[in-house]
Amino acid sequence: MPAGNLLRQPDTTLPHRLARSASTERDALHSTEELLSWLAERGAAQLHDVRRIPFAELHKWRFDDATGDLGHDSGKFFRVQGLRVQTDHGPVRSWTQPIINQPEIGILGVLAREIDGVLHFLMQAKTEPGNVNGVQLSPTVQATRSNYTRVHEGGAVPHLAHFRDASERQVLSDVLQSEQGSWFFRKRNRNMVVEASGPVEEHEDFRWMTLGQLHRLLAVDNLVNMDSRTVLSCVPGGFEGAAEEPGELAAALARSGDPRSGTLHTTAEIRSWITARQSEHLVRTDLIPLHGVRRWRRTADEIRHELGAFFTVLAVDVRSNSREVGGWTQPLLRPHGTGVVALLVTRVDGVLHALVNARVEPGYLDVVELAPTVQCTPENYEGLGVDYRPPFLDEVLRRDPGQVLFDTELSEEGGRFYQARNRYQIIEVAPEAADGAPPDFRWLTLHQLTELLKHSHYVNVQARSLVACLRGLR
Amino acid sequence: MPAGNLLRQPDTTLPHRLARSASTERDALHSTEELLSWLAERGAAQLHDVRRIPFAELHKWRFDDATGDLGHDSGKFFRVQGLRVQTDHGPVRSWTQPIINQPEIGILGVLAREIDGVLHFLMQAKTEPGNVNGVQLSPTVQATRSNYTRVHEGGAVPHLAHFRDASERQVLSDVLQSEQGSWFFRKRNRNMVVEASGPVEEHEDFRWMTLGQLHRLLAVDNLVNMDSRTVLSCVPGGFEGAAEEPGELAAALARSGDPRSGTLHTTAEIRSWITARQSEHLVRTDLIPLHGVRRWRRTADEIRHELGAFFTVLAVDVRSNSREVGGWTQPLLRPHGTGVVALLVTRVDGVLHALVNARVEPGYLDVVELAPTVQCTPENYEGLGVDYRPPFLDEVLRRDPGQVLFDTELSEEGGRFYQARNRYQIIEVAPEAADGAPPDFRWLTLHQLTELLKHSHYVNVQARSLVACLRGLR
Repeated sequence: MPAGNLLRQPDTTLPHRLARSASTERDALHSTEELLSWLAERGAAQLHDVRRIPFAELHKWRFDDATGDLGHDSGKFFRVQGLRVQTDHGPVRSWTQPIINQPEIGILGVLAREIDGVLHFLMQAKTEPGNVNGVQLSPTVQATRSNYTRVHEGGAVPHLAHFRDASERQVLSDVLQSEQGSWFFRKRNRNMVVEASGPVEEHEDFRWMTLGQLHRLLAVDNLVNMDSRTVLSCVPGGFEGAAEEPGELAAALARSGDPRSGTLHTTAEIRSWITARQSEHLVRTDLIPLHGVRRWRRTADEIRHELGAFFTVLAVDVRSNSREVGGWTQPLLRPHGTGVVALLVTRVDGVLHALVNARVEPGYLDVVELAPTVQCTPENYEGLGVDYRPPFLDEVLRRDPGQVLFDTELSEEGGRFYQARNRYQIIEVAPEAADGAPPDFRWLTLHQLTELLKHSHYVNVQARSLVACLRGLR
Repeated sequence: MPAGNLLRQPDTTLPHRLARSASTERDALHSTEELLSWLAERGAAQLHDVRRIPFAELHKWRFDDATGDLGHDSGKFFRVQGLRVQTDHGPVRSWTQPIINQPEIGILGVLAREIDGVLHFLMQAKTEPGNVNGVQLSPTVQATRSNYTRVHEGGAVPHLAHFRDASERQVLSDVLQSEQGSWFFRKRNRNMVVEASGPVEEHEDFRWMTLGQLHRLLAVDNLVNMDSRTVLSCVPGGFEGAAEEPGELAAALARSGDPRSGTLHTTAEIRSWITARQSEHLVRTDLIPLHGVRRWRRTADEIRHELGAFFTVLAVDVRSNSREVGGWTQPLLRPHGTGVVALLVTRVDGVLHALVNARVEPGYLDVVELAPTVQCTPENYEGLGVDYRPPFLDEVLRRDPGQVLFDTELSEEGGRFYQARNRYQIIEVAPEAADGAPPDFRWLTLHQLTELLKHSHYVNVQARSLVACLRGLR
């Protein structure tokens, strides 16, 4: 008979350790000012010269004659294909579009370790060709399978072994999450936080920092990259409202993250609502040859919609001194305009609730995911009728300065998207707003979102960014 | 400011109400003997004459000239297409096969209500053309979208409105679950249990029964149908081991269903293991024309594999006096041989654990789902080498009678499958077995399985059947 100590209990110390990290700024290993200087210094040191080129100058990337698809000679990385969408949902019921197909699952991993009793996270100063500003703060590891199986013949990915070889007791979070469903076909990445066992190599592009420092840096425009935000959002909660100098909002956040607090809808009801939204919407998607996409034109240096709307596919030449390979060319997707990504929140009896939208995007594996209250590029809707107007967009555009809890421009993944900026906002509205919601919207607490984030396919990448930001408010 | 009673807490009474239902047999509305007589009587009354016919005699079903696909003229119901599978997993890395494509999400719904203070469930005596024995015990509602939007011009589905119009507080469980991933392409059904508000119409094909009675009936060969079993498996747990006359096993089951009990792996570790299995396996599936499937032959009355293995697609003519339409023809899939579906369980410090397998099937939406320890048709492996031998099959075949906790032949869905029988078994092994498991296997408690069953895509339909059976042991 095995000994009694075979049976284990969940780790109840982790929320406390995370709260301690969230409330540590001054006593962190490096001051926040030092981190900002280091980032600026790495930005200057990492030569990253990005130049738009015609498609004909792409090296090892080519358009397939038969299909028109744009892919890499190795068959790896990703492929720009066509997608046909048919749905019974929304004002437009059928369309075709280019889409990025990247079936491989990559790793977005952040290494954690206690330094002087406080959890610190190892973040990387990393340049991506699509970044608006060169260097951004990235996870410890950000690797596609092609990266780490060395398709482009570069050096090994630093720190990767910590994630590939982690024992189950070192893993703090580990979940597949989707990315942009309008631009990617069923892309998922593995979002991991692993506590290091044994020594971690020092490297000038990496620095340890606390959760409190990361929360502070999230409020800086285009600094914490998308991959870092999604990994942070998947960390188990329980530290909401913890900060070195908690403000007026902290108590409402702490209650929102507390499993014992009441909620407007029970978690069973929220799951049933999601099941109903998934069942109600018929969405059929088929990958088609890029040649078969209507109303999009390919020129020598762009694939674009005939109205100039939505996005463009373009090509860049990259010269770098900091990456596994010194230089390369690749396609990127450039969205048009700056998006609005906004979460309305309110306090119901002192418990913060956030209004999420069960949103259909064609690239989702499972029909709908929960999105922020508003997620759109307003200029795509100019001149269109009121039926096309995204719900709650006007509430966001006409907000009062006093309602704004968070307002920062953040970028989407610079390895696939060219200068994709969104203005991420968290806006507090009067509690009366929680009296009802349209069928595709529901008010959830942070604890409810945190529980859903332990699983795939529930919370979309934009909402995950806002969860990371919301938890860090004070 | 909204009133304090806006905020709600999870329903903590439901596990107790379910336990009371599970421990009620003699004081149920009808005795179990009456239910068995009623089933026999309905079986005799429901004329259901099923005759195999050549494909040419199918009415409104035809093979598409261009693709060879077999579909209905309305474009509804389902379609037999081809599937191409490429994977880096298992002994066979690439194949093509016929597959049923049924993109619509149907409802499998069981209505519940308290009768004399005890929850009863409204079950239906229903004949399906593929059933080995005519009538089986089915959910209150078992309806595809084509059914309830009346594609075949039959009568309305009884009791459907209870599910379509349920308010959130009446819903006891509601989750999308997959079905057979070897036979269906990404099929899901909505598994619902709804507590009736207001009167429920009486009907000779329906009877109220307790969970304890359902547990008793699960042990009868080919009686409780697949749809009932999957709906039951998704009911929140907390009633494990409850029975009118609990036996020696009850305490180990109760501990296994208790969230406070220790587990061999924490739930976070189990989720990480699933994430790793999903990430490790590359599985690419593409629907292709049925014409493009190699090594399968279509004759006048069958589509079959050249070795006679796996399954056959055939056609039947059905005459019925009990269904929405009096008679129809349709294709069915007939598996070859009786399958073995077995779960190894063991007690670790008195807490029952079950050994599940992270299994790749091509029709899953998300690469792997948790399957029973063994799920195969042994005759498909005869004459093949040891590399092909399913792990743990020999432990199941060579079991000792004293190890058998459950052993019942149960059928798969008779509306799609022709006499698809599996021998479902639960076999207890010595605790030393829990000392380790191959990478694709893990020991889980019932509580851990119950938590995963609140979400889609985790537990496959065969494992769900065994969860329903396991919870009902005593």
